[in-house]
Amino acid sequence: MNFFERIRLIDSSKKGEDIFNLIEQMYPICRSITGNGVRETLSIISKIIPIIIHEIPSKTKVLDWEVPLEWNIQDAWIKNAKGEKIVDFKNSNLHVLNYSIPIHKKVNLQELKEHLFTLPDYPEWIPYRTSYHDKEWGFCMSYNQFKELNDEIYEIKIDSKHEKGSLTYGEFFIKGQIKDEVLISTHICHPSLANDNLSGIAVSVFIADILSKIKTKFSYRFLFIPATIGSITWLSLNEDKIKKIKYGLVLNLLGDSAKFNYKKSRSGYSAIDKIVQNCLKHFVEDYGVLDFSPYGYDERQYCSPGYNLPVGRLSRSIYGEFPEYHNSADNLDFIKPDKLEESFELLLSIIHVIEDNKTFINLISKGEPQLGKRGLYRKIGGESDVKEYQMALLWILNQSDGENSLLDISVKSGINFNLIKTAAEELENVELIKAIKN
Amino acid sequence: MNFFERIRLIDSSKKGEDIFNLIEQMYPICRSITGNGVRETLSIISKIIPIIIHEIPSKTKVLDWEVPLEWNIQDAWIKNAKGEKIVDFKNSNLHVLNYSIPIHKKVNLQELKEHLFTLPDYPEWIPYRTSYHDKEWGFCMSYNQFKELNDEIYEIKIDSKHEKGSLTYGEFFIKGQIKDEVLISTHICHPSLANDNLSGIAVSVFIADILSKIKTKFSYRFLFIPATIGSITWLSLNEDKIKKIKYGLVLNLLGDSAKFNYKKSRSGYSAIDKIVQNCLKHFVEDYGVLDFSPYGYDERQYCSPGYNLPVGRLSRSIYGEFPEYHNSADNLDFIKPDKLEESFELLLSIIHVIEDNKTFINLISKGEPQLGKRGLYRKIGGESDVKEYQMALLWILNQSDGENSLLDISVKSGINFNLIKTAAEELENVELIKAIKN
Amino acid sequence: MNFFERIRLIDSSKKGEDIFNLIEQMYPICRSITGNGVRETLSIISKIIPIIIHEIPSKTKVLDWEVPLEWNIQDAWIKNAKGEKIVDFKNSNLHVLNYSIPIHKKVNLQELKEHLFTLPDYPEWIPYRTSYHDKEWGFCMSYNQFKELNDEIYEIKIDSKHEKGSLTYGEFFIKGQIKDEVLISTHICHPSLANDNLSGIAVSVFIADILSKIKTKFSYRFLFIPATIGSITWLSLNEDKIKKIKYGLVLNLLGDSAKFNYKKSRSGYSAIDKIVQNCLKHFVEDYGVLDFSPYGYDERQYCSPGYNLPVGRLSRSIYGEFPEYHNSADNLDFIKPDKLEESFELLLSIIHVIEDNKTFINLISKGEPQLGKRGLYRKIGGESDVKEYQMALLWILNQSDGENSLLDISVKSGINFNLIKTAAEELENVELIKAIKN
Repeated sequence: MNFFERIRLIDSSKKGEDIFNLIEQMYPICRSITGNGVRETLSIISKIIPIIIHEIPSKTKVLDWEVPLEWNIQDAWIKNAKGEKIVDFKNSNLHVLNYSIPIHKKVNLQELKEHLFTLPDYPEWIPYRTSYHDKEWGFCMSYNQFKELNDEIYEIKIDSKHEKGSLTYGEFFIKGQIKDEVLISTHICHPSLANDNLSGIAVSVFIADILSKIKTKFSYRFLFIPATIGSITWLSLNEDKIKKIKYGLVLNLLGDSAKFNYKKSRSGYSAIDKIVQNCLKHFVEDYGVLDFSPYGYDERQYCSPGYNLPVGRLSRSIYGEFPEYHNSADNLDFIKPDKLEESFELLLSIIHVIEDNKTFINLISKGEPQLGKRGLYRKIGGESDVKEYQMALLWILNQSDGENSLLDISVKSGINFNLIKTAAEELENVELIKAIKN
Repeated sequence: MNFFERIRLIDSSKKGEDIFNLIEQMYPICRSITGNGVRETLSIISKIIPIIIHEIPSKTKVLDWEVPLEWNIQDAWIKNAKGEKIVDFKNSNLHVLNYSIPIHKKVNLQELKEHLFTLPDYPEWIPYRTSYHDKEWGFCMSYNQFKELNDEIYEIKIDSKHEKGSLTYGEFFIKGQIKDEVLISTHICHPSLANDNLSGIAVSVFIADILSKIKTKFSYRFLFIPATIGSITWLSLNEDKIKKIKYGLVLNLLGDSAKFNYKKSRSGYSAIDKIVQNCLKHFVEDYGVLDFSPYGYDERQYCSPGYNLPVGRLSRSIYGEFPEYHNSADNLDFIKPDKLEESFELLLSIIHVIEDNKTFINLISKGEPQLGKRGLYRKIGGESDVKEYQMALLWILNQSDGENSLLDISVKSGINFNLIKTAAEELENVELIKAIKN
Repeated sequence: MNFFERIRLIDSSKKGEDIFNLIEQMYPICRSITGNGVRETLSIISKIIPIIIHEIPSKTKVLDWEVPLEWNIQDAWIKNAKGEKIVDFKNSNLHVLNYSIPIHKKVNLQELKEHLFTLPDYPEWIPYRTSYHDKEWGFCMSYNQFKELNDEIYEIKIDSKHEKGSLTYGEFFIKGQIKDEVLISTHICHPSLANDNLSGIAVSVFIADILSKIKTKFSYRFLFIPATIGSITWLSLNEDKIKKIKYGLVLNLLGDSAKFNYKKSRSGYSAIDKIVQNCLKHFVEDYGVLDFSPYGYDERQYCSPGYNLPVGRLSRSIYGEFPEYHNSADNLDFIKPDKLEESFELLLSIIHVIEDNKTFINLISKGEPQLGKRGLYRKIGGESDVKEYQMALLWILNQSDGENSLLDISVKSGINFNLIKTAAEELENVELIKAIKN
């Protein structure tokens, strides 16, 4: 029974609404690279999959970095001269510069403006800004509001703390038949931004959930980590596991309506690159493939030269290249259940190949075997249309010389992997081919 | 003297009409994968080239297959309730399902229709259908006739026999200076279809005829075989000869007016692939090149993984992709003497490369040799036009480092092989280059 | 300090006018492959760079050739029946067939015409023609003048001499820190033609001049030689130096207004090919790249198979493919100071890569180093625009695994070499990378 059949047997329900509902629950929380927002998020995830939560103490040395002080925030606001709150963290956690130092003082307009961030091109939207490494304070607001500010004295307060604590991340491991691992990594450090990356988190959770309910060949490791410092921390503390990673994907931006865009691993020719491109070809009409570049999400770390892992990145919209990137327009209206559903299904089709790809040898390699006498061929010859399934049989027989996997045959023939896999099972049943690898 | 010069010396006549006339003779015969139709066809061919005719007994095991019972047919018809023959095998041998079991009974319209084959998209044409492996009976007719059938009782008769006998094929071998072989294979199992594949048969015959009249470097083996079971039979019985095959072509569909289409060998990078593509580039304005796929004619068998022979397929129209494919419209009007002539000439240009390709080394490789003092260069310098012949001289000298054959030089320079060959002969005469391979 | 900074420190002036002025000085001289015109030209060059002048005796054997007798010309003319000079060498040295034998006689129109060369397509222009290897005499004139010739007796005189003498060429060598050499070769044998190749000569001279004023890593060898016989002579007499040539360029046609066209070296994948193409990509909007062919200028000799040197050809207009090629329209109006200037600057950017390319290893290769704490990163995160400089830092860190040079990183990233080089210097300063090659 192939991967898809086993999946559908235990759960054939549509997942779009479930994924969206999980995002809704996580959306209001103010996350950052450390702190209680991350813990609260992981706690919600724990209700679906039993993740292990790791707490790595502040100041721990991790590769070239160190774990920062933990940041938590209670409140933040700007009051005008009349004492009215004109900016309130409670309305949107994007209003505060993420990782801001605490502050409470009166400032004039000029000083205030030095600490304000806006988006003049999108005057209604509040930007998302961070300052993890420099001790800064600041507020983000819409450009429309910014333009209305009067020259008066403002009272500002950011009730935040940087304290010794820890960096928190979640990990979920599914033990497969073999020790080789598939890594799925998503970042969990962004506050109220729906596509970036609650979409990636929630799709990962439901993939993890369904995989945990069947027996898989590969082992699967899901990471829910703060971007950059989180992957650096995990890599630093898990040197023993890194070599086991045979395939990896960084997941993000999976809920919007853009076409899929796959960013290749550093080598550009990893098995995961071939798999995802072949799946996309059969799964959607149009998609993009990006060469690796050393910028973006945590693939930057996994693909640093000392690791050079076979990790690609799967998204819809491209990092940094859509108007709603890193601002208040990346909200629950920006993502759609059917798009989340489609992302989920694409991932299953990718995992299908990872799980079910094999290399066979044709046991009757001289000439074509007679398919007719084995009940594998059409009865009336001479018709000019040949069924795709019959082509799948012929392609597998012709290419199974030990050099070509079923994935390779899917790529060469243009026939989707699932049909190739089904045809291979039938050929194996009648003992025309025999598996030699994987 | 190069191949073309030797060919033209013994026979410089146009062959288009001769080839067409041979097709005309073979056209009326009802052929199948076995039986007297094949024998009759080979007998006609024997009048031009002295082929050896092989008879392989029914039930002989050949690779994964066995030679079928021999099929012969005397007559077949459908009579209506009035006793009128509305379908008569004597009018067109396409009317009967090829390899039909014998039958003689009365049937009502409903039962009859289950055994009728038509082409609704081309209502005037009679399809060609076969049932080699299942015991079926059936008739083919035009869709127009089919629509007019009344709900009455029909008498049907197919006077055929399946008996122990043999599979018949023809072979013609030309011994060359070396034992390496060129394989030319055509199928001879189709009844009255002109392009598929009387065109391939007749062009092969005239190529074989002309090659047999000169001394060739390579040995040439021409096979006239029933499709699939014929190539499987030959491969099964000739293991010792298979390793000698250095180049091969399956020839078919060479008489219609479509552009040439070459289907590459399984590897896609065989010498024959390079040769045919280079010849086509210089021979015609427009042509197609198809990647290998495990469907089509006997290249399926030659390119099965246990043999993986360097065999491509040369056609005009593409297998299964033209309206006249496998129906009564593939008749003598569908093929033209000038197209057959052109196919013949293209094949000669391909064989020219096979015969005459060599690799040289430049004996004065440091700097250009002075062509002027050897009478090989234009007298007045400074003109901006350089003759193609002079370019051929320079290309050969520059590329003859032992790595590049004359074919490679033709490909790189864009100068046709014949001119490169002529220039190489002149350079060899003045001892500027020396052959090192082939 | 990188190459450009060192160059600009000693001389940051614009060179377009200087180069043009040098061409103006050399323009009137009647050059050929030997003789006093070459000596006079080299003497003018000597005023700028201290070239060594070599005199190779006539009849010296050089590879497959021999040095020809030296040719010098005093005067040449055609007088009509009235004794009027209708063609006068003193007006244009193109009027005489270059390397003409001496002659003084009376001829009728018919005989004269057999020795006249014109350009019917450009009836106002005088062609440039040569006859180095055959003992001919002849005149070149405009087609308009040719059409007006009357059927009368003409007196013709060519006061030239072929005598034992020598072949003259100039060589300028700059000793670098290493013995590996860069070869810059230009031909000096054309009479009054400005673009072909006074432009190449003059640009070379100013490149040589400026390189001689700084310390270079590579050694540089500039050749000012007659075409074909000059490069053959140099190659023949300098076998010991040939192996040291790591990069080479034949320079010509650098003063006209066409886009740049680079002709690749014989292999097509030499380091010089990669360098020039990458420089052109960043230097100009549009440019051409030509595959190697064994025709053109002295790259024919450097790229003959016995040497196969990594020598490309840099030009604007393409050899033989512009109307002004080899005729009187290739004059001082055809070339422009700003185009010469641009050619000069492009060459500096090419030499910049040759001089400054290195391969580094990332010393903190597991994960990204923390650029922020080293002052190399922007302060406020979350902005969607990433500066190109920061991308340069990330690309270098990601690709510096010992396999990729800075040039490779420039090619992959699409960031110009100079910015990559600058970023690498900063990364080297903070000890994040270490040079391992070059």
